[in-house]
Amino acid sequence: MKKEIIAFQGEKGAFSQQAARQFLGENVAVLPCERFELVYMALRDGVATGAAIPIENTLHGSVHENYDHLLNFEVTIVAETSVRIIHNLIAPPGTKFRDVTKAYSHPVALNQCLKFFSTNSNIRKETFYDTAGSVKMLMEQRPRGAAAIASSVAAETYGATILKRSIEDDRQNFTRFFLLRPKNFRALRSATNEKSPFKTSIVFTTRNSPGSLFRALSALALRDISLTKIESRPMRGKPWEYLFYLDFLGHSSDEKVKNALAHIREVADFLRVLGSYPAARSA
Amino acid sequence: MKKEIIAFQGEKGAFSQQAARQFLGENVAVLPCERFELVYMALRDGVATGAAIPIENTLHGSVHENYDHLLNFEVTIVAETSVRIIHNLIAPPGTKFRDVTKAYSHPVALNQCLKFFSTNSNIRKETFYDTAGSVKMLMEQRPRGAAAIASSVAAETYGATILKRSIEDDRQNFTRFFLLRPKNFRALRSATNEKSPFKTSIVFTTRNSPGSLFRALSALALRDISLTKIESRPMRGKPWEYLFYLDFLGHSSDEKVKNALAHIREVADFLRVLGSYPAARSA
Repeated sequence: MKKEIIAFQGEKGAFSQQAARQFLGENVAVLPCERFELVYMALRDGVATGAAIPIENTLHGSVHENYDHLLNFEVTIVAETSVRIIHNLIAPPGTKFRDVTKAYSHPVALNQCLKFFSTNSNIRKETFYDTAGSVKMLMEQRPRGAAAIASSVAAETYGATILKRSIEDDRQNFTRFFLLRPKNFRALRSATNEKSPFKTSIVFTTRNSPGSLFRALSALALRDISLTKIESRPMRGKPWEYLFYLDFLGHSSDEKVKNALAHIREVADFLRVLGSYPAARSA
Repeated sequence: MKKEIIAFQGEKGAFSQQAARQFLGENVAVLPCERFELVYMALRDGVATGAAIPIENTLHGSVHENYDHLLNFEVTIVAETSVRIIHNLIAPPGTKFRDVTKAYSHPVALNQCLKFFSTNSNIRKETFYDTAGSVKMLMEQRPRGAAAIASSVAAETYGATILKRSIEDDRQNFTRFFLLRPKNFRALRSATNEKSPFKTSIVFTTRNSPGSLFRALSALALRDISLTKIESRPMRGKPWEYLFYLDFLGHSSDEKVKNALAHIREVADFLRVLGSYPAARSA
């Protein structure tokens, strides 16, 4: 059996690495990539056996770039998982909290810790390209009075110390991740998980006429198939036209799902099934 | 008549200022705000008479934070407009293109000019909190070999020079803006625009049961009302539950729109009309 290598975007210690561990165990080998596109290329070229990608955050909504890549690369979604986003104030060993005057992190992470910054007004926000990358930079360059905001996996990865745990404003902050495999990957419905509920993700476009989305959704509703997510994405080069991404309960090999997909094909210009996978336990 | 002051997020010279000019003329007075929330507060408190906010970009999708604020603040959408996003390389007067070694801008703007950076590999990307703000900083601090990426309005505002025009990768890059007014603002359908097509924006939640979104959309489809946009937003504190934002053609005072809204109220837990406004000419 080929050794598992899971590609993800970001530096070692990113929340995506946490997701990879939830999918495949603590010791899974990972391939950090600078950009999302490189993650998909690593999967396509066989450099990685799988990819862990964030698709949706409960505070910020969908990670749009990944919706676009799911369409453009030939990949299959084989699993989903939910990671709670816990931000920690991290610094090189020996740094004291009272000496911290600035905190580096990605702008999104900084903005999720506004209460911390208003309580600690002596600490300045410093934007950095990556959460885990800010810990890596601190350990290499040791700027005076500097800390970073990142995951506990990032602190562990770079041998840094957590000065304050869980400084995020909102504890109801979860990111949903997909485990992707190459398109030809066979996701068998084994006897063990036959009973667990499945989800299916699809993408389609409709003719731009009144009621066209409604007709596509009727293919699900008329068969009592439960829609769990709908996302519209602008089409590149066609301003104000949209792709629709749906998640619904059921497996693409279920009889009623097969019928629903055939029905959607009748009313859609284009349809692709992105994968069927066991539904993660709700956060 | 009260003097118009239009609030927007960002520094002077932001694309939102361009939108404010498209709404109300070149000389409209503006109130730049550091955060979106402050824009809505300025409108609520009467410090501003209106607000220009970005709601959707053709490459990146919706500006989610504004969908959340539209719900939380008592505002009315009274107009929409579309701004083409043109990025320019800007520097203090006297700077030569060949001397530029770094370009400051917001990460989104930097990522929309990747072809420029790969052609000019001697120029390093430097993240900054704001596009127009990076021009302001250059003019104040004059760092050596530095340029900024921002709008032509930003160059004009701060007296900087455009070294290269239109360096964005994709010319089909538009942002749709709303003009907001306080909720009690009366948008009269004047005789002059009575014939122009209107759009209405609403937000609602449904019971989390199979087909509930479908039933809400049926209220529009069964009346041949054309849906132009659908957006789902996670609900804060209720992970994986959603608010739905719809735009459709028609005015809330049209008979069939009134009937459709009454029908949606029957199936929705909550519904609010965010405004009816003349539809912008398609980009």
